[in-house]
Amino acid sequence: MNLTEQFKTIKDYFSPKIVAEVNNQYVKIAKIKGQEIPWHNHEHEDELFYIIKGNLLMEIENEPSFNMKKGDLFVVPKGVNHRVSSENECLIILIENKTTKHTGNVKSTITKSIKEQNY
Amino acid sequence: MNLTEQFKTIKDYFSPKIVAEVNNQYVKIAKIKGQEIPWHNHEHEDELFYIIKGNLLMEIENEPSFNMKKGDLFVVPKGVNHRVSSENECLIILIENKTTKHTGNVKSTITKSIKEQNY
Repeated sequence: MNLTEQFKTIKDYFSPKIVAEVNNQYVKIAKIKGQEIPWHNHEHEDELFYIIKGNLLMEIENEPSFNMKKGDLFVVPKGVNHRVSSENECLIILIENKTTKHTGNVKSTITKSIKEQNY
Repeated sequence: MNLTEQFKTIKDYFSPKIVAEVNNQYVKIAKIKGQEIPWHNHEHEDELFYIIKGNLLMEIENEPSFNMKKGDLFVVPKGVNHRVSSENECLIILIENKTTKHTGNVKSTITKSIKEQNY
């Protein structure tokens, strides 16, 4: 599977797509543009962000925000409140536990079920 | 952390470097050149390969071999005998359980302990 090709199949922003499964983790790809993602955390699960294209603003509660660019990798530890956004289109890879809800326990307009994220 | 920068710090081939940890998985980067990796499997653990640069020949026991190129992602399921090699330099990301030995239970000249893979 080629991720460059997979990204072309994604039309909607904030709509993670599961592309692989490894040891009970889902590998997902997503396109981010805008500020629709609410502050949230994943109580028991770390979440990995890896930037394929564009820039991502990573906001972490009580810490300085920072910009992520192509090739940057960051793991949000479990339980830590965070929010990501992008002024222009940003392509990312996510690694999350199979049980992780992508907006945590916060239900928002962009929240997708695992079924909706399926390949 | 920027993986492009991290790759520059790797001098040896077949010497995975742990760059992150997510839900009991290690994210590793490695440079592959040559055919030193022996046939092996990971009895209880899947192993994810993602190609950053170059080409990787993926050989799977009893299946056709295939070439992986930039952006390609493949998961070797647990228990499946496999071997990877590259004629020219290839840069890869690996995702493995923290318990995974990178050459399985096969000990070879390139085998590195987790301590030797540490950042």
